[in-house]
Amino acid sequence: MTDQISSQSAVGILDSGVGGLTVVKEVFRQLPKERVLYFGDTLRCPYGPRTPEEVRRFTLEIVRYLSLYPLKALVIACNTATAAALEEVRRNVSVPVLGVIEPGARAAITLSSHGRVGVIGTEGTIRSSAYERALKQIDPDLYVVSHSCPTLVPLVESGGEDTPQARQIVRLALSPLKKHRLDSLILGCTHYPLISGLIGREMGSGVTLISSAEETARELSAVLHHKGLLYEGPARQPHDHLFFTSGRPEAFRSIAENWLAQRVSVEPVVLPALEESPVG
Amino acid sequence: MTDQISSQSAVGILDSGVGGLTVVKEVFRQLPKERVLYFGDTLRCPYGPRTPEEVRRFTLEIVRYLSLYPLKALVIACNTATAAALEEVRRNVSVPVLGVIEPGARAAITLSSHGRVGVIGTEGTIRSSAYERALKQIDPDLYVVSHSCPTLVPLVESGGEDTPQARQIVRLALSPLKKHRLDSLILGCTHYPLISGLIGREMGSGVTLISSAEETARELSAVLHHKGLLYEGPARQPHDHLFFTSGRPEAFRSIAENWLAQRVSVEPVVLPALEESPVG
Repeated sequence: MTDQISSQSAVGILDSGVGGLTVVKEVFRQLPKERVLYFGDTLRCPYGPRTPEEVRRFTLEIVRYLSLYPLKALVIACNTATAAALEEVRRNVSVPVLGVIEPGARAAITLSSHGRVGVIGTEGTIRSSAYERALKQIDPDLYVVSHSCPTLVPLVESGGEDTPQARQIVRLALSPLKKHRLDSLILGCTHYPLISGLIGREMGSGVTLISSAEETARELSAVLHHKGLLYEGPARQPHDHLFFTSGRPEAFRSIAENWLAQRVSVEPVVLPALEESPVG
Repeated sequence: MTDQISSQSAVGILDSGVGGLTVVKEVFRQLPKERVLYFGDTLRCPYGPRTPEEVRRFTLEIVRYLSLYPLKALVIACNTATAAALEEVRRNVSVPVLGVIEPGARAAITLSSHGRVGVIGTEGTIRSSAYERALKQIDPDLYVVSHSCPTLVPLVESGGEDTPQARQIVRLALSPLKKHRLDSLILGCTHYPLISGLIGREMGSGVTLISSAEETARELSAVLHHKGLLYEGPARQPHDHLFFTSGRPEAFRSIAENWLAQRVSVEPVVLPALEESPVG
């Protein structure tokens, strides 16, 4: 990656698998002129139960791969990877790097009516206390409750349909939060917006759900604007974007096309090859 | 202003009068650790009907005054001044400068459900087409309707209570927008959040109101974060902030204390004195 960043370059977005596609969808919607290169590490998904050291290593491998292309910004669209590796990625590349945690925390502060914020995420994200730190750094008086929901990613990956069994899983996962009289709940995992209907019904209308996907895309827009890096040309076409996966391309394409409602070009990537690439 | 910007410095916020206090309130709420220096040019309010050249000159005078203090960011909390002077202010100071138009435009893009966005503002703001440009620069396919509402600032300044007469003024002001099937409406004047109840009732529940005050404070938070300029110390106390007015300090204090629900320190400033200060 060179020091001269061009507004024509792409935005790199990475995730442990398909969850980060919620961020891609919001980037397509809020920044239709921007080109996206996405890497979904589906072969090694989920990251949630892994050690921070392992997640950090995987994330840096993907950053190294994406950095072979000219980029103007990088988005770590995975809460677990953001918690484990954001600072280290920032030290390794010269473009702006956004995680999903800080935008979600800022949105919670904007939208919370009484300063009672809940956070749900994977074990790795919750164990890191990254949301709690980000929230309290800005406002030490916030009441913050964090709770890991290991059953929700598998629920999303199995389809996430609204069935009595799915409702039961969501009810059990969220029940420890009910007594805290929350006014907002951060969906601290990029998979969760895919079942926000189920989560919203369980929490009730008094709780505002905060999707880090929407907020991260908006913050990307602000960062590109303030750096003079918004692309000025026409809106992009589906074939301008490129999706890499470490897993099976057909399975990835099927989920991505269904979620993004457009054709996607998927390239399989064999990860050991990455070891040969220098850090950008 | 020096090149070495300190996180301990204050955020300068300026407005044509008291409207920018809606931004101050959101900064106090979303960034309770930050110190604010506010300048309300109540003597020369309103800016809306003035020429862009005049608004530019007034804005630069105020920036020059605030720059006598160590600042870490500047917020032009007035839509008319943002439209007329944002780029020139950016060229004149070394700290990040935020207007209220771009954050409002970005929020509309995030929150709009069907891409049908309305904008209301003063004559100066609407004539500048600044919102339309900011919106279309990001998404050329948006449907945007802009409409100036010269009766609304006087309504707010006279108290803005919910009376049959006030409702009638709001109804007449907004009636040209009704046929456009909008899904969101940008309150493109920092006075308007003070009558958002009246505006919301007139537009109906299908239209999301977007307050540039809330969005600007959130974007300030993101910008300070990305520049490493968030203050790490304890939350500020009311006496840490300072409010300057070119008008009568007692009148300003009364409105400010009522709106911010805390004590405020107000200093009167005689503007001709500014001519002697060099640009920071």
